[in-house]
Amino acid sequence: MGSQVLHIDCPDEKGLVYKITEVIYDHGLNIINNQEFVDSSTQHFVMRTEFEGSETPNGVLEDLEKALPEAANIRKAEIGKRSMVIMATKEPHCLGDLLLQYRYGEIPARVEAVISNHNGLKSLADAFDVPYHYVSHQNVDRTAHEKEILDIIGQLKPDYIVLAKYMRILTPEFVSRFKNRIINIHHSFLPAFVGANPYKQAFERGVKIIGATAHFVTDDLDQGPIIAQDVLPVNHTFTAEQMTKAGRDVEKLVLAKAVKLLLEERIFIHGNRTIVFE
Amino acid sequence: MGSQVLHIDCPDEKGLVYKITEVIYDHGLNIINNQEFVDSSTQHFVMRTEFEGSETPNGVLEDLEKALPEAANIRKAEIGKRSMVIMATKEPHCLGDLLLQYRYGEIPARVEAVISNHNGLKSLADAFDVPYHYVSHQNVDRTAHEKEILDIIGQLKPDYIVLAKYMRILTPEFVSRFKNRIINIHHSFLPAFVGANPYKQAFERGVKIIGATAHFVTDDLDQGPIIAQDVLPVNHTFTAEQMTKAGRDVEKLVLAKAVKLLLEERIFIHGNRTIVFE
Amino acid sequence: MGSQVLHIDCPDEKGLVYKITEVIYDHGLNIINNQEFVDSSTQHFVMRTEFEGSETPNGVLEDLEKALPEAANIRKAEIGKRSMVIMATKEPHCLGDLLLQYRYGEIPARVEAVISNHNGLKSLADAFDVPYHYVSHQNVDRTAHEKEILDIIGQLKPDYIVLAKYMRILTPEFVSRFKNRIINIHHSFLPAFVGANPYKQAFERGVKIIGATAHFVTDDLDQGPIIAQDVLPVNHTFTAEQMTKAGRDVEKLVLAKAVKLLLEERIFIHGNRTIVFE
Amino acid sequence: MGSQVLHIDCPDEKGLVYKITEVIYDHGLNIINNQEFVDSSTQHFVMRTEFEGSETPNGVLEDLEKALPEAANIRKAEIGKRSMVIMATKEPHCLGDLLLQYRYGEIPARVEAVISNHNGLKSLADAFDVPYHYVSHQNVDRTAHEKEILDIIGQLKPDYIVLAKYMRILTPEFVSRFKNRIINIHHSFLPAFVGANPYKQAFERGVKIIGATAHFVTDDLDQGPIIAQDVLPVNHTFTAEQMTKAGRDVEKLVLAKAVKLLLEERIFIHGNRTIVFE
Repeated sequence: MGSQVLHIDCPDEKGLVYKITEVIYDHGLNIINNQEFVDSSTQHFVMRTEFEGSETPNGVLEDLEKALPEAANIRKAEIGKRSMVIMATKEPHCLGDLLLQYRYGEIPARVEAVISNHNGLKSLADAFDVPYHYVSHQNVDRTAHEKEILDIIGQLKPDYIVLAKYMRILTPEFVSRFKNRIINIHHSFLPAFVGANPYKQAFERGVKIIGATAHFVTDDLDQGPIIAQDVLPVNHTFTAEQMTKAGRDVEKLVLAKAVKLLLEERIFIHGNRTIVFE
Repeated sequence: MGSQVLHIDCPDEKGLVYKITEVIYDHGLNIINNQEFVDSSTQHFVMRTEFEGSETPNGVLEDLEKALPEAANIRKAEIGKRSMVIMATKEPHCLGDLLLQYRYGEIPARVEAVISNHNGLKSLADAFDVPYHYVSHQNVDRTAHEKEILDIIGQLKPDYIVLAKYMRILTPEFVSRFKNRIINIHHSFLPAFVGANPYKQAFERGVKIIGATAHFVTDDLDQGPIIAQDVLPVNHTFTAEQMTKAGRDVEKLVLAKAVKLLLEERIFIHGNRTIVFE
Repeated sequence: MGSQVLHIDCPDEKGLVYKITEVIYDHGLNIINNQEFVDSSTQHFVMRTEFEGSETPNGVLEDLEKALPEAANIRKAEIGKRSMVIMATKEPHCLGDLLLQYRYGEIPARVEAVISNHNGLKSLADAFDVPYHYVSHQNVDRTAHEKEILDIIGQLKPDYIVLAKYMRILTPEFVSRFKNRIINIHHSFLPAFVGANPYKQAFERGVKIIGATAHFVTDDLDQGPIIAQDVLPVNHTFTAEQMTKAGRDVEKLVLAKAVKLLLEERIFIHGNRTIVFE
Repeated sequence: MGSQVLHIDCPDEKGLVYKITEVIYDHGLNIINNQEFVDSSTQHFVMRTEFEGSETPNGVLEDLEKALPEAANIRKAEIGKRSMVIMATKEPHCLGDLLLQYRYGEIPARVEAVISNHNGLKSLADAFDVPYHYVSHQNVDRTAHEKEILDIIGQLKPDYIVLAKYMRILTPEFVSRFKNRIINIHHSFLPAFVGANPYKQAFERGVKIIGATAHFVTDDLDQGPIIAQDVLPVNHTFTAEQMTKAGRDVEKLVLAKAVKLLLEERIFIHGNRTIVFE
């Protein structure tokens, strides 16, 4: 059995660490990693405990529920047992990197399938023996298109949905079904550019760094809680196309990092912030 | 005599490098560094040539003017002979770092003076034996305040004005007097935050990197050509105040870098972009 | 009163977090930050707890000693109450940056004095109103030189000694008096270069990054536990002198970071490794 | 036709840029990118010129040879027309990333084949439709093993050989056949560790950054001219195994970068240094 992770999210009060570790101690479990954080701005407490041991985990959960305030949010996961579906459109860089890392054991989850509104990435999924579902958005309305995707996801029952450059906006209905379970990758610039073709704008503005942000998907487009961010340096010799390539490189890095943080259960969502125990 | 730098900015046409280097060759000068770039989006050519030699530099300029198209913009500078004025308000981090680097010979220019609308940084300037001009903005209107500053600058005749956290907006009249000669440092975030207290907003959004941008000052507030940018990682354990501290660290680094690029005459301004020969 | 920090270092056994937090809870203290780590290679447990509260801290220490195994190493510090002495030789970049950050409140300690075997940095210390002790190493043997320094340090009783480019090797006798209390900054390269003039060697080898390492000083020259490391990119246009400048920039950054980690009591030494709770 | 690149390597003398650009100008070719550098330590001149145009390139080479000193080393390449062979052993991270980037058009060359002394990576090469040659080193001596590899390479006639975690040492005879045409990726640490299992040593030393170096292969093991280097931050929570994973991530990044620099003909080798026109 791999290690178990306990997630506890609770309004802060004195003695929480003591009460939680008492329950774990009483069950004869061995803590191998323990991280907690009190958000002083909201007086909220979060704790991630990784433990090993043979005791019945249900007993632990029950006893924790008794020991902690009613408002406490407690959940438990076994690392390495998660599953996910990847959604993509045409660009292969993020999907390919995830599949490659999945192939050589760096992604601690089962990739159930790739779902795409185009057929161009099928050979890439095939190369890694991952099922590919082509669900065209043409000649159907948005609801019908999403329904077809939801049917597939309903069969696969993934824990998480990873948008690896999926270029269609999901409806609030879709998003609300998978609250805190969909993540996305998005290019990011200093300063930010609104409107079409941001890399062209970035080029015309002569930016010196190109960034990417991985975030949870909420109804507020690209404004969900941030999981990971990074940048790469660029300079005047970069054409808009080369800036786009640099953007792909950093998107690939940041999404892979976010996926691993997610699957190792290192992320807590707190309002519009994340607490990430790296 | 230190090395000379030649800046040439010209609509691109075939043979420019050849024509320029022919003049330099004919004058018996020795090129020690030569960088050129053709901006393919505008078909504009820029070239920075660092050379040594005893020939009359005026002759070089005259012959270059003859050899190059009339639209060519040619200028020459001697590295290490520039002068600058630093403007600041209350925060010491950028000013202090510049003065410190100036003190130990890392800034290739003479710092003529510090001008501030507060008196709090006087002891810092005194510590480095740099003249300090306190020009209060209280009880005077903006024009009168700037006039007093302009009088001081008029005496000192600096090549460049460095805004090291000067917290007042300069009028278009002020800016237009020093076209391409004023630089500023500005915090930068992914995503960008508008309105008051951006670090508080960044904290509430849970950003994972904090950045800074050094740029030329134009009438369009904080939108002038970008010289240098960098970021530092932050995480959920940072309070808004600690994010502000991280912001100061990266502002200090980026402004010092931009000042050195400026004084070594490594920057060309091209529309709203810079070409920086690092 | 500022926040208190508790450092506990102990062979790992089940229930340590529980026992520690029980004592803190019983004393009515409020944990504001708690980080622990079990080094699985040595089965050793370390914990850093930052807390606030009005209870008698002595009582806490006594009760912790009763609750924990005899081998546990427990200490307590009040952040912001530490003191340090900086030792330097001729180079101003590290000393200047520390004094500047001290001046504007970024270094949570009192800088008691600068001690140098040269007199060239006196004006820098004077500029920041920090006492400067010039202890020449000329015409005295090593023991006599160190004795003079030890007399000054004996008066000042600093918690820590920061070597900010102090270019003389300290004797084992000196080092052993301040076990785990002296830190140093050292240039670092990939690959490493032994022998004289490492920047010249780095230049000749065409390295693409220049690094620095801050570490505790032990008898084994430059081999003590590492606190912080960083690098800066360089390229073929850098002369050996410019690589040296880049080296100074990264030394300054890394030493300032290490000093803050030290003074915020974020570092545990574990054999030849450090555990740094950032 | 894609763009052509001209590489010129020459003892420095006055007027070289002028003479070279005169030839290019006379042939009616259009320079789209031009970078030159004089290594002041060796008084050697290098220049990379990217140009477009319909004139006979042979004529250009002949005229350049006439115009330049006899010692000048002149070569020309067409970007996008290079070919390479990748050699690997068991680890998939570098090979997989190169094949993936090759698949989506980011590697400007033809990958002729993968050659490995194990069979484990065959399915990976198959997934990307790249021929895989398994040449076991078992039951044959080193010379016989290399001869079999040389036979394959002799058929494929690649411009470059990329060692993507090929774990056998090549003989001087092998290396000398492909002077300046073999590149390798190598983990790098600060400080450096000699002997077996460097990641375990790095872990035990508590390093804070893990690096990688891409370099040309010479007879002097891992000491050839450096092309690119980078590092990733690690900390005390990383086990030796996790440091190894971080090492793989940075190896993958640095090798991909080096391969692109190589194929875009951006690298000059100068003694034991490289000049890299990024």
